[in-house]
Amino acid sequence: MSDDFLFAEDTEEELPEEKGTWKVLIVDDEPEVHAVTKLALSDFTFQDKRLEFVCAYSGAEAKQCFKDHDDIAIVLLDVVMETDDAGLQVAEYVRNTLHNHFTRIILRTGQPGQAPERDVILNYDINDYKSKTELTAQKLFTVVIATLRSYRDIIVIEENRQGLEKIISASADLFSIHSLEGFIEGIVQQLSSLLGGTKDAAYITSAVAGPHPIDEENPREFFVFTGKGEYAELEGRPLQEAVTGEKLAACHRALAERSQVYEDEYLVAYCQGKSTHGSLLYMSGLPRKLTAMDKHLLELFSQNVQIAFDNVLLTKDIEDTQREIVVRLGQAMEKHFSDGKHIQRMVDMCVLLAEAYGLSREQVEMLKLAVPLHDIGKLKIPSKIFTKAGSLDDSEREVMQNHAEFGYNLLKDSKRPIIKAAAKVARDHHEHWDGNGYPRGLKGEDIHIFSRITAIADVYDALRSKLHHKEAWPLDKVLDVFRSQRGKQFDPSLVDILLRESDAFEEIQQRYQECEPAALK
Amino acid sequence: MSDDFLFAEDTEEELPEEKGTWKVLIVDDEPEVHAVTKLALSDFTFQDKRLEFVCAYSGAEAKQCFKDHDDIAIVLLDVVMETDDAGLQVAEYVRNTLHNHFTRIILRTGQPGQAPERDVILNYDINDYKSKTELTAQKLFTVVIATLRSYRDIIVIEENRQGLEKIISASADLFSIHSLEGFIEGIVQQLSSLLGGTKDAAYITSAVAGPHPIDEENPREFFVFTGKGEYAELEGRPLQEAVTGEKLAACHRALAERSQVYEDEYLVAYCQGKSTHGSLLYMSGLPRKLTAMDKHLLELFSQNVQIAFDNVLLTKDIEDTQREIVVRLGQAMEKHFSDGKHIQRMVDMCVLLAEAYGLSREQVEMLKLAVPLHDIGKLKIPSKIFTKAGSLDDSEREVMQNHAEFGYNLLKDSKRPIIKAAAKVARDHHEHWDGNGYPRGLKGEDIHIFSRITAIADVYDALRSKLHHKEAWPLDKVLDVFRSQRGKQFDPSLVDILLRESDAFEEIQQRYQECEPAALK
Repeated sequence: MSDDFLFAEDTEEELPEEKGTWKVLIVDDEPEVHAVTKLALSDFTFQDKRLEFVCAYSGAEAKQCFKDHDDIAIVLLDVVMETDDAGLQVAEYVRNTLHNHFTRIILRTGQPGQAPERDVILNYDINDYKSKTELTAQKLFTVVIATLRSYRDIIVIEENRQGLEKIISASADLFSIHSLEGFIEGIVQQLSSLLGGTKDAAYITSAVAGPHPIDEENPREFFVFTGKGEYAELEGRPLQEAVTGEKLAACHRALAERSQVYEDEYLVAYCQGKSTHGSLLYMSGLPRKLTAMDKHLLELFSQNVQIAFDNVLLTKDIEDTQREIVVRLGQAMEKHFSDGKHIQRMVDMCVLLAEAYGLSREQVEMLKLAVPLHDIGKLKIPSKIFTKAGSLDDSEREVMQNHAEFGYNLLKDSKRPIIKAAAKVARDHHEHWDGNGYPRGLKGEDIHIFSRITAIADVYDALRSKLHHKEAWPLDKVLDVFRSQRGKQFDPSLVDILLRESDAFEEIQQRYQECEPAALK
Repeated sequence: MSDDFLFAEDTEEELPEEKGTWKVLIVDDEPEVHAVTKLALSDFTFQDKRLEFVCAYSGAEAKQCFKDHDDIAIVLLDVVMETDDAGLQVAEYVRNTLHNHFTRIILRTGQPGQAPERDVILNYDINDYKSKTELTAQKLFTVVIATLRSYRDIIVIEENRQGLEKIISASADLFSIHSLEGFIEGIVQQLSSLLGGTKDAAYITSAVAGPHPIDEENPREFFVFTGKGEYAELEGRPLQEAVTGEKLAACHRALAERSQVYEDEYLVAYCQGKSTHGSLLYMSGLPRKLTAMDKHLLELFSQNVQIAFDNVLLTKDIEDTQREIVVRLGQAMEKHFSDGKHIQRMVDMCVLLAEAYGLSREQVEMLKLAVPLHDIGKLKIPSKIFTKAGSLDDSEREVMQNHAEFGYNLLKDSKRPIIKAAAKVARDHHEHWDGNGYPRGLKGEDIHIFSRITAIADVYDALRSKLHHKEAWPLDKVLDVFRSQRGKQFDPSLVDILLRESDAFEEIQQRYQECEPAALK
């Protein structure tokens, strides 16, 4: 068994700060025993900590002391007090009622006949048995220091054990995070419970900057992925801009050595990844000096941070790919009859409406995937109908209107919520609030909110764009259409959002006029 | 501090099995001291374990004993042997060279003047100091039992500490698993390192059975998700079929109480999930009786198992959704000119070819997403060309052939490997092995393996299917085409696979003739 870190001496020079004390409970019904004990141990120190005495004059008082203090290192325990076995009762109480297995119990009896050594040492979970006569000052000194050593050994391991339990629970929380938002908050919160609160923190990585996170051909620069405190404002900035001087050197050292770097004011922890090149966790303003054990715990935690991060990245990568596929396919379908950016603009407009309407993050994400597929049914419409100059005749219009049902039929039998949502949007995005739409003439809130949102974005962008059969309408004229169709073709509350946010709509309308579809968000 | 489980008495009746011993090292240069010590402690037991003596007659021998035994509980250590401080050197060696902080060191000196008590107890990390004269048989008994108690307390916490370290590393491994394959192997392997090997194991859950794992409207029955040993063959079977009698009752109890159920022969651990209804981990054939501490560790581990499982499910769900979207869109595009199951069959045929060819799992997954999009460029071809009866004229054929470049252009500027692969397949799936294909006249291995595979599946399924302009060809005639085009139109090694596996191809060809596209794998 090698657990050197547990018992490592902290090599830094000693600070003049308070080191704490060892609590010794003296239990005896004779006051002079208290006095003599304190005198004998008056100049005692062990590992630079002095003793602090707590006194009890009966078994009952001793029990109360154990309730009041959960950090008693040693109890010097008389046996015969208010009853012949009052001290033994205390030992029993400490171990079996309070379940305290850490305090070292030294029985100290004046009447060995009352509590025969062999029986007592066998039957009570005590750690030493002394008759008062054998306890010279020297022997008392020896027994206290030897016993404190055992106590220290137990506490050292126990504290590490508790630290590990915290890491397990911290990691469970960390691995339950599925989005990059909240990732740094999760880390900082868990670190606080391990080490105490931090002032500033940053998670610095080379992954995730581009659309594809793990791009071996183009390794990315390290940058501040997310931060707290003074690093909150530096998100997205390259490492060498965000961190400077000695701290930057510490970051480079941590990366080069794949290790932790500890300074007085801050630390940089290298987080080893299984799939990526690793990241850095920077923290400053730690509330206390870290021990060797703290550092060991931090190392374990850093490893899990990186695995959790890699997991979140993986999920994000798949989700982003999925979104890009849907948008590209939606655009490809649109290319028959528009400039091909219609889908991109529609998605952004729908997100704007959905967020202002108050849909949840999950719903917005689902809507983003459903919108691009709204016209999938048009794949079944002969292209000559789309490209026809002038208006459609009745039978052509009927064929055209069938695209809604066609689209629904292509998607409806899926069991996946996203595809089911897309099926409904495909079917219902031409329904009208007043019931005059197609294919089913649904009314008001019987039309799913996704479809009501999609309907507005679809019409807005079509009117504001130049298509093969029409010029782009001026903004005023488009807004007039929505004003006049408020509560008729369109959901009035969504129209209100559109009118209120028309600047933002225009911004989206302009955004994808020229540029390539790079910005697939 | 309440860590009751650490010191819990195991309540089961005592088994008559071997309990092990406490190792006591006697170090003394006088053989009679060894004899007397053994005699005084001859009937000693502590917690049903006897003492086992190891003897050394010099400091040098003592050091060797510590190298040979890493589980010495107590050393009774003489001071003056080959040198005046030989014993003190041993103490120093144990703590500072071997970094052994667990063995309790009791110094036992015949010449207290050589090693003054106060100096020695202060300067050496020893746990007691006795002069041989004060060590009566009773005192020896007391000191050994009291010291063993400290040793036991330390070892109990230390073992738990080590168990927790194992859990942390086990969990890190578990959270690095991203596929459901290998999940039970991962669990069983980690459990073996925690508790020792198991014979049979099963992971029983209600999630993941259907295409959408977390379907609140249709909670699924519990079933054996994956198993080892006798449960390997029961994968996919409902709980109440796979497990019967008393074991089934134990499973139901674990579910109802959301707790662990321990029996002599097996255990059932409830795994609490954050998002799902939880699962069960069943194990039998554990190599030893579990202690309260084992059970506590198992509980911590079970929680992480479930979080890891939920993570894997989430990833799988997104991936499956993505695959379904691509297949449905590919089918929707195909519906212009075929029975709409062409894509489904092509994907399965491509997987068959890819696996036989030796592509990696990652490549096969990528191919599955790329194949459905191979004809996306046809969206830009007027539908009258598709639906034309008879053969195309030259200009129509040229427009038709443009679909390859069109498809490439729709996808090529993506940065995502999957979409880039799909772009290449869209462009190159009409290239010929001998360079006579289009659009670029690529040759041999200059054509990406994905495109060579897609080309074969595309042609095979088209020939074997009834399309609007042709009947399905008989199998023999289709195979003849491939035989004659081996090394001309098609990659010869892929043709060899096709000819060898033609039964499997036919099976796929038949599979999606009637059924609905439910089986989107």
